[in-house]
Amino acid sequence: MTDTNDSLAREAGSLFLPKYDANGMVAAIVQHAESGEVLMFAYMNAEALDATRRTGRAHFWSRSRGKLWLKGETSGHFLFVQQILVDCDQDALVLKVLPAGPACHTGAPTCFYRELGPDGLSRLD
Amino acid sequence: MTDTNDSLAREAGSLFLPKYDANGMVAAIVQHAESGEVLMFAYMNAEALDATRRTGRAHFWSRSRGKLWLKGETSGHFLFVQQILVDCDQDALVLKVLPAGPACHTGAPTCFYRELGPDGLSRLD
Repeated sequence: MTDTNDSLAREAGSLFLPKYDANGMVAAIVQHAESGEVLMFAYMNAEALDATRRTGRAHFWSRSRGKLWLKGETSGHFLFVQQILVDCDQDALVLKVLPAGPACHTGAPTCFYRELGPDGLSRLD
Repeated sequence: MTDTNDSLAREAGSLFLPKYDANGMVAAIVQHAESGEVLMFAYMNAEALDATRRTGRAHFWSRSRGKLWLKGETSGHFLFVQQILVDCDQDALVLKVLPAGPACHTGAPTCFYRELGPDGLSRLD
């Protein structure tokens, strides 16, 4: 395919053609399926995406540990995936989830617990 | 700082210490400030982040064009930033915005206009 056809197929088609980056990753935005709150952000490679689709539990690629990461594996705070949305150029996903516990490893319900103001960060909770 | 102190300062502190990746980018998730819908996903470098904070209009780094990108510059579909949230390790942002038009270059209100099912993609609109 030419670049243009490729781009059109990605944007307008019904084929899932994930556009992995140079490291083999797509971006994964995790959003609460009911409240709409953005809970966390991570990356998925093909293996993580396959495992997520197969099991219904969110898997990511841990860049720090260099391995497949089932979210909740140690904490029990699994993310049960209700729906997966794909963006126009298929390099980013939204996972709509029901979380079994706090999404953040700090214990906060969401990783996005601070607001950026002119003078720095302030907690929202 | 040691890695541990650095990590703690990033997670618990009130200092904004954005953790840019190897390409100098942080992830930017754009969410509608009222509906909570995720509209698009892009990357920001320090210049884009500064321009966004200074002007209140979302700027990104265009990886394809290799330049600063004021969203809406040609279309008029600016994203007016109401709030910026920062995640635990400060490598991802949520921009809560009021969009002046469709967020997607395809003309869709959001870039996430398709759902991934077992057999591929289907449009949601």
